[in-house]
Amino acid sequence: MKVRIDIMLKNGVLDPQGKAIGHALGTLGFAGVEDVRVGKTIFVTTSETDAAQALAAGKAMAEKILANLVIEDFIVTVV
Amino acid sequence: MKVRIDIMLKNGVLDPQGKAIGHALGTLGFAGVEDVRVGKTIFVTTSETDAAQALAAGKAMAEKILANLVIEDFIVTVV
Repeated sequence: MKVRIDIMLKNGVLDPQGKAIGHALGTLGFAGVEDVRVGKTIFVTTSETDAAQALAAGKAMAEKILANLVIEDFIVTVV
Repeated sequence: MKVRIDIMLKNGVLDPQGKAIGHALGTLGFAGVEDVRVGKTIFVTTSETDAAQALAAGKAMAEKILANLVIEDFIVTVV
Protein backbone atom coordinates (compact mmCIF):
# COMPACT_ATOMS: atom_id res chain seq x y z
CA MET A 1 0.00 0.00 0.00
CA LYS A 2 1.30 3.45 -0.86
CA VAL A 3 0.58 6.48 1.30
CA ARG A 4 1.08 10.05 0.18
CA ILE A 5 1.84 12.68 2.81
CA ASP A 6 1.66 16.31 1.69
CA ILE A 7 3.27 18.74 4.11
CA MET A 8 2.83 22.49 3.74
CA LEU A 9 3.75 25.47 5.87
CA LYS A 10 0.71 26.88 7.64
CA ASN A 11 -0.79 30.06 6.25
CA GLY A 12 0.94 33.04 7.75
CA VAL A 13 4.24 31.27 8.31
CA LEU A 14 6.99 32.99 6.33
CA ASP A 15 8.31 30.85 3.46
CA PRO A 16 11.77 32.16 2.49
CA GLN A 17 12.27 29.39 -0.07
CA GLY A 18 9.00 30.34 -1.75
CA LYS A 19 9.96 34.01 -1.68
CA ALA A 20 13.30 33.19 -3.33
CA ILE A 21 11.59 31.14 -6.04
CA GLY A 22 9.06 33.93 -6.64
CA HIS A 23 11.88 36.45 -6.99
CA ALA A 24 13.78 34.14 -9.37
CA LEU A 25 10.68 33.61 -11.52
CA GLY A 26 10.15 37.38 -11.77
CA THR A 27 13.80 37.98 -12.66
CA LEU A 28 13.69 35.28 -15.33
CA GLY A 29 10.74 36.79 -17.15
CA PHE A 30 7.65 35.24 -15.60
CA ALA A 31 5.40 38.24 -15.03
CA GLY A 32 2.41 38.24 -12.73
CA VAL A 33 3.75 35.91 -10.05
CA GLU A 34 2.13 37.06 -6.83
CA ASP A 35 3.07 34.42 -4.30
CA VAL A 36 4.97 31.15 -4.11
CA ARG A 37 4.72 28.54 -1.34
CA VAL A 38 6.79 25.40 -1.19
CA GLY A 39 5.86 22.10 0.42
CA LYS A 40 7.06 18.52 0.64
CA THR A 41 5.45 15.37 -0.63
CA ILE A 42 6.49 12.07 0.90
CA PHE A 43 5.42 8.76 -0.61
CA VAL A 44 5.70 5.87 1.83
CA THR A 45 5.30 2.34 0.52
CA THR A 46 4.36 -0.03 3.34
CA SER A 47 3.68 -3.74 3.58
CA GLU A 48 0.27 -2.87 5.07
CA THR A 49 -2.55 -4.25 2.92
CA ASP A 50 -5.49 -2.51 4.59
CA ALA A 51 -6.15 1.03 3.33
CA ALA A 52 -7.54 2.32 6.66
CA GLN A 53 -4.56 0.94 8.57
CA ALA A 54 -2.14 2.39 6.04
CA LEU A 55 -3.85 5.78 6.35
CA ALA A 56 -3.63 5.63 10.15
CA ALA A 57 0.06 4.70 9.96
CA GLY A 58 0.71 7.58 7.54
CA LYS A 59 -1.00 10.02 9.91
CA ALA A 60 1.04 8.74 12.84
CA MET A 61 4.27 9.11 10.82
CA ALA A 62 3.38 12.67 9.84
CA GLU A 63 2.42 13.66 13.39
CA LYS A 64 5.37 12.06 15.13
CA ILE A 65 8.24 12.54 12.72
CA LEU A 66 7.65 14.01 9.30
CA ALA A 67 5.78 17.26 9.97
CA ASN A 68 6.56 20.04 12.40
CA LEU A 69 3.03 20.67 13.67
CA VAL A 70 3.96 24.07 15.08
CA ILE A 71 4.46 25.52 11.62
CA GLU A 72 3.23 22.85 9.20
CA ASP A 73 -0.04 21.22 8.17
CA PHE A 74 -0.27 17.84 6.48
CA ILE A 75 -2.68 15.79 4.42
CA VAL A 76 -2.43 12.01 4.18
CA THR A 77 -3.98 10.06 1.32
CA VAL A 78 -3.75 6.45 0.20
CA VAL A 79 -2.71 6.26 -3.45
CA MET B 1 -5.18 31.78 -10.38
CA LYS B 2 -3.21 29.23 -8.39
CA VAL B 3 -1.04 26.61 -10.04
CA ARG B 4 0.28 23.54 -8.28
CA ILE B 5 3.55 22.03 -9.51
CA ASP B 6 4.45 18.58 -8.14
CA ILE B 7 8.06 17.61 -8.73
CA MET B 8 9.28 14.07 -8.09
CA LEU B 9 12.51 12.25 -8.77
CA LYS B 10 12.15 9.89 -11.73
CA ASN B 11 11.80 6.20 -10.99
CA GLY B 12 15.22 4.62 -10.68
CA VAL B 13 16.93 7.80 -9.50
CA LEU B 14 18.43 7.27 -6.05
CA ASP B 15 16.65 9.27 -3.34
CA PRO B 16 19.00 9.56 -0.33
CA GLN B 17 16.56 11.82 1.54
CA GLY B 18 13.83 9.20 1.15
CA LYS B 19 16.22 6.45 2.24
CA ALA B 20 17.12 8.45 5.37
CA ILE B 21 13.45 9.00 6.21
CA GLY B 22 12.69 5.32 5.66
CA HIS B 23 15.53 4.38 7.99
CA ALA B 24 14.36 6.86 10.63
CA LEU B 25 10.78 5.55 10.44
CA GLY B 26 12.04 1.99 10.95
CA THR B 27 14.22 3.01 13.88
CA LEU B 28 11.36 4.86 15.50
CA GLY B 29 9.03 1.89 15.48
CA PHE B 30 7.13 2.06 12.21
CA ALA B 31 7.35 -1.49 10.93
CA GLY B 32 6.70 -2.51 7.34
CA VAL B 33 8.08 0.59 5.61
CA GLU B 34 9.40 -0.66 2.28
CA ASP B 35 10.28 2.48 0.39
CA VAL B 36 10.13 6.24 0.81
CA ARG B 37 10.38 8.84 -1.96
CA VAL B 38 10.40 12.58 -1.39
CA GLY B 39 9.20 15.28 -3.75
CA LYS B 40 8.49 18.99 -3.80
CA THR B 41 5.21 20.79 -4.23
CA ILE B 42 5.27 24.39 -5.36
CA PHE B 43 2.14 26.54 -5.33
CA VAL B 44 2.42 29.58 -7.57
CA THR B 45 -0.25 32.27 -7.34
CA THR B 46 -0.33 34.35 -10.52
CA SER B 47 -2.37 37.31 -11.70
CA GLU B 48 -3.38 35.21 -14.74
CA THR B 49 -7.16 34.76 -14.89
CA ASP B 50 -7.34 32.15 -17.66
CA ALA B 51 -6.87 28.56 -16.45
CA ALA B 52 -5.27 27.33 -19.70
CA GLN B 53 -2.80 30.23 -19.71
CA ALA B 54 -1.99 29.67 -16.05
CA LEU B 55 -1.38 25.98 -16.74
CA ALA B 56 0.91 26.82 -19.67
CA ALA B 57 2.82 29.30 -17.51
CA GLY B 58 3.18 26.71 -14.76
CA LYS B 59 4.55 24.17 -17.24
CA ALA B 60 7.04 26.70 -18.59
CA MET B 61 8.18 27.55 -15.05
CA ALA B 62 8.67 23.88 -14.22
CA GLU B 63 10.55 23.14 -17.44
CA LYS B 64 12.80 26.19 -17.37
CA ILE B 65 13.52 26.71 -13.70
CA LEU B 66 11.83 24.60 -11.07
CA ALA B 67 12.46 21.02 -12.19
CA ASN B 68 15.69 19.33 -13.24
CA LEU B 69 14.35 17.35 -16.19
CA VAL B 70 17.37 15.05 -16.24
CA ILE B 71 16.36 13.45 -12.95
CA GLU B 72 12.89 14.82 -12.17
CA ASP B 73 9.35 14.57 -13.51
CA PHE B 74 6.66 17.14 -12.84
CA ILE B 75 2.89 17.48 -12.91
CA VAL B 76 1.17 20.85 -13.20
CA THR B 77 -2.43 21.38 -12.13
CA VAL B 78 -4.59 24.45 -11.69
CA VAL B 79 -6.12 24.53 -8.20
